[in-house]
Amino acid sequence: MKRFSLTIATEGNNDIVNLNPELSRRVRELFPKGDGLLHVFVGGSTAGITSIEFEPGLVKHDLPSVFQRLVPDDLHYDHEATWNDDNGHSHVRAALLGPGMTVPVSDGKLLTGEWQQVVLIDFDTRPRRRTIVCTLIV
Amino acid sequence: MKRFSLTIATEGNNDIVNLNPELSRRVRELFPKGDGLLHVFVGGSTAGITSIEFEPGLVKHDLPSVFQRLVPDDLHYDHEATWNDDNGHSHVRAALLGPGMTVPVSDGKLLTGEWQQVVLIDFDTRPRRRTIVCTLIV
Amino acid sequence: MKRFSLTIATEGNNDIVNLNPELSRRVRELFPKGDGLLHVFVGGSTAGITSIEFEPGLVKHDLPSVFQRLVPDDLHYDHEATWNDDNGHSHVRAALLGPGMTVPVSDGKLLTGEWQQVVLIDFDTRPRRRTIVCTLIV
Repeated sequence: MKRFSLTIATEGNNDIVNLNPELSRRVRELFPKGDGLLHVFVGGSTAGITSIEFEPGLVKHDLPSVFQRLVPDDLHYDHEATWNDDNGHSHVRAALLGPGMTVPVSDGKLLTGEWQQVVLIDFDTRPRRRTIVCTLIV
Repeated sequence: MKRFSLTIATEGNNDIVNLNPELSRRVRELFPKGDGLLHVFVGGSTAGITSIEFEPGLVKHDLPSVFQRLVPDDLHYDHEATWNDDNGHSHVRAALLGPGMTVPVSDGKLLTGEWQQVVLIDFDTRPRRRTIVCTLIV
Repeated sequence: MKRFSLTIATEGNNDIVNLNPELSRRVRELFPKGDGLLHVFVGGSTAGITSIEFEPGLVKHDLPSVFQRLVPDDLHYDHEATWNDDNGHSHVRAALLGPGMTVPVSDGKLLTGEWQQVVLIDFDTRPRRRTIVCTLIV
């Protein structure tokens, strides 16, 4: 088992960051031959991890606008009333998406599809620094 | 690899149970030093696992009310018409959320964020006893 | 660690395929005794993996109709405008559900509930051939 971390600065507000280039570089270095699994996890309750084709239409418009449709930022949230905060929707979106995923690797490469990238989505309402904990099981 | 189970009594109807205290206790005992992964899984098709800040606003109101908004209990469900049952929405909510997650651990601690707890959500329409199968990979 | 693949022909358009029979057969053959984890992953950005009770009401009507409610195929998607494509909703649904899951196994059996099956959902708008990468950690 090999563990490494990535530190990512985000804009918040559904900022979607492509993790594939850096994850691919690390996997190639740490484990160039053989089969394994890469687990990717963001600590924190207002961000999530998934995979999507990283192209501007999907990541700048389509996925953020569906999150706004499903979990609007202007609903009533008890979280905001209790804590005098503005990110109730951020917590709920993160809980729905989940904070991590596992990707198979082989011979130093992630086995994601050609148009499939691992991404971090920051749902918080302000810029954040996020730590991604990555674990390679071999 | 180390395997253990938790048995949890729930109220059903979106009851959200904080698993972090017991998971933390077990990880501290079973694997006090080094890096690992903890996989947490609920058997059954009407419950799910995710992480959220475990505070009353989010777990008693905000997340349950978004599930009711997204997958209302009073839509028509063929599952209910076929089986003369009342929990079609419970099955659909559980399929959307997913039955498990994996959390990195290090030196006997879960690497969840300070305000991030692993939770079981029971979507069924009655109290249930749930078995959570936990697997620690070291 | 043992790796195997399944090739699945789907109809697209929310076709839901039960993977449990083939996964169970492989696990029984490859690892008949002891505790392990099975990771199941679909490469590609328009399909997902989850678990659900595999019965016609849920898989032919209830889950597909909720996806249509949450992420309608007739919204405006920038992805479609940019690439002259028709599957923006397929990408968004796949990103929400996620491309993989992990299931505990013991003594050659998946520890899914009695009414819980691992399924592939193909959200694309045409029939596809999908490769499922499966990894057994023991």
